[in-house]
Amino acid sequence: MSLLRQDVTTHDWVIFAPERVRRPHDWKKSEHDSEAPGASQEGCPFCPGNESRTGPEIYAVRGGSARDTPGWSVRVVANNFPALRIEEDHRRSEQRLLFRAMGGCGAHEVIIESPDHERSLADQPVDQVERLLQTLRFRYIDLLEDHRFQAIVIFRNHGELAGTSLRHPHCQLIATPVVPQLLRIKHQVATEFFDQTGDCLYCRLLLEELREPDRVVVENAEFAAIVPFASRLPFEVWILPKHHQASFAGVDPQHLGPLAEILQSVLLRLHRGLDNPAYNLTFNTAPRGDENKAYFLWHVQILPRLTTSAGFELGSGMSINTVLPEVAAKFLRNVAI
Amino acid sequence: MSLLRQDVTTHDWVIFAPERVRRPHDWKKSEHDSEAPGASQEGCPFCPGNESRTGPEIYAVRGGSARDTPGWSVRVVANNFPALRIEEDHRRSEQRLLFRAMGGCGAHEVIIESPDHERSLADQPVDQVERLLQTLRFRYIDLLEDHRFQAIVIFRNHGELAGTSLRHPHCQLIATPVVPQLLRIKHQVATEFFDQTGDCLYCRLLLEELREPDRVVVENAEFAAIVPFASRLPFEVWILPKHHQASFAGVDPQHLGPLAEILQSVLLRLHRGLDNPAYNLTFNTAPRGDENKAYFLWHVQILPRLTTSAGFELGSGMSINTVLPEVAAKFLRNVAI
Repeated sequence: MSLLRQDVTTHDWVIFAPERVRRPHDWKKSEHDSEAPGASQEGCPFCPGNESRTGPEIYAVRGGSARDTPGWSVRVVANNFPALRIEEDHRRSEQRLLFRAMGGCGAHEVIIESPDHERSLADQPVDQVERLLQTLRFRYIDLLEDHRFQAIVIFRNHGELAGTSLRHPHCQLIATPVVPQLLRIKHQVATEFFDQTGDCLYCRLLLEELREPDRVVVENAEFAAIVPFASRLPFEVWILPKHHQASFAGVDPQHLGPLAEILQSVLLRLHRGLDNPAYNLTFNTAPRGDENKAYFLWHVQILPRLTTSAGFELGSGMSINTVLPEVAAKFLRNVAI
Repeated sequence: MSLLRQDVTTHDWVIFAPERVRRPHDWKKSEHDSEAPGASQEGCPFCPGNESRTGPEIYAVRGGSARDTPGWSVRVVANNFPALRIEEDHRRSEQRLLFRAMGGCGAHEVIIESPDHERSLADQPVDQVERLLQTLRFRYIDLLEDHRFQAIVIFRNHGELAGTSLRHPHCQLIATPVVPQLLRIKHQVATEFFDQTGDCLYCRLLLEELREPDRVVVENAEFAAIVPFASRLPFEVWILPKHHQASFAGVDPQHLGPLAEILQSVLLRLHRGLDNPAYNLTFNTAPRGDENKAYFLWHVQILPRLTTSAGFELGSGMSINTVLPEVAAKFLRNVAI
């Protein structure tokens, strides 16, 4: 059973999921497994043939085979150690001034990217990446039907330094019953910009970046990948759509092909140029109710984990980046793929 | 030469310090040293006898020996690979709407905690910890004299997972020419609370925690150490003063003894209870101009690095914590020290 508590000093919510402590990579060094489960194909719960080892199948792209059997190309299951659950209460259980809490209501799904245990997203054929994106969009839209969920966070962890606990390539999705403060802050900043200029901050930013393309990594008709001007991390890349759309729910299904193409191109450049670095990938998208706003643009962030955040970063929230974005962008542009 | 750039989507500033890429733990895996420099005592720039290998000595606690020679008990030097420098320009060099930048003006100092290469802070005698805290306070107050510096971040990295690059125990201090957004947000939240209730949010929080001491780890006459109600990390501990004071600059020097005592007690509990975990320690204190405000309380945060933040945390800013604060506090209370 999980719950949420609000940090009264920042207004941020924290998810407490004590049951997840049974997972690998947890707090007590002596309890660490020497090898993550699923490191080998045989024991992997995400490999075809092992369907019974996952949570119930929520969705799959398959050619006619039965549910919870092999024959799928993308498969969505409930996380076995969920941070949040649809069964939990979403009402605020405690309403004391300094100690606000609520039930751990939400959803936590795993999207298994392909039956292939070893092939990472960078090496998948573009049409398989597109099937994955179609699945993510489908799950995103489906979960929005539950009005208790305020935000849906899609993410991908690649490599141990990025927090992966299972090797078989997968994405995850967590639907939260509160709007994360970071999202609120980004929306406040973008709203203020819109009120002052009449423009979507992100669309305007993309226009400027394309005009002087020092920080552009790659682009196609629908998307551009840039290393942002004030990237927090070395080789951080954002993929932005060229057509305004606040929510990933509103993306034109026709654009998922071009998104797959540019995403794969960026991941391959990172993989080849930086020796398969660990990275996190996240979708930034509008919270419930802001899907049709003129002031936010959904986008994908790719965050390589080449450095360790330390006391300065944790204490101040500021980052120290050792690679200039123009240098990073040029490097990635020049990787042969 | 370093510089700062503002992220227009969050208003946060990012420090770019391309020269720091020569440090260990930098971005390209193949450039990683197999062993951090200073892993052995012989090559350690912070050990007595090697004073010439550090930046110029800024301050030292010594019994009469000459500057930049052995005989010190705490020594402060400029960081050899500084994120910010006092020589840089602090004016905003670029004022384009979407691309704000400024020179990397600031200070970056290293506070060598003792001549002992191996003895970590948890194992130091309390009077040595007190000398360290006196030194930190002295440097903090001295740097505030430079009116270009808006905030001073004191921090400590313990262990590789916490970003340490040199083994010899040391603290660091970075003075920034901008107020970090995280600090602004905390101040906004605390100001709003003060406007509504007339109380300092942190003082009120501490009172409540002491009334029902489930989350208290240890306390003395001047300070209390608690695991906060909505801690972001397992076994996170805050040390809060019992007397209101917004800035570390204003701490009564008589209180540094009790602070040393409680700090050492907390670090020893972590060390013994959790098998010497990596952790970051940071001082939260008011930015320039807010030193005498009634609504903020300086405090120390100790952030164990037992888990890896992943895509959900980076994408949403929210945390998933697997250990309930009450469980963590009880565990730490019961560690025999």
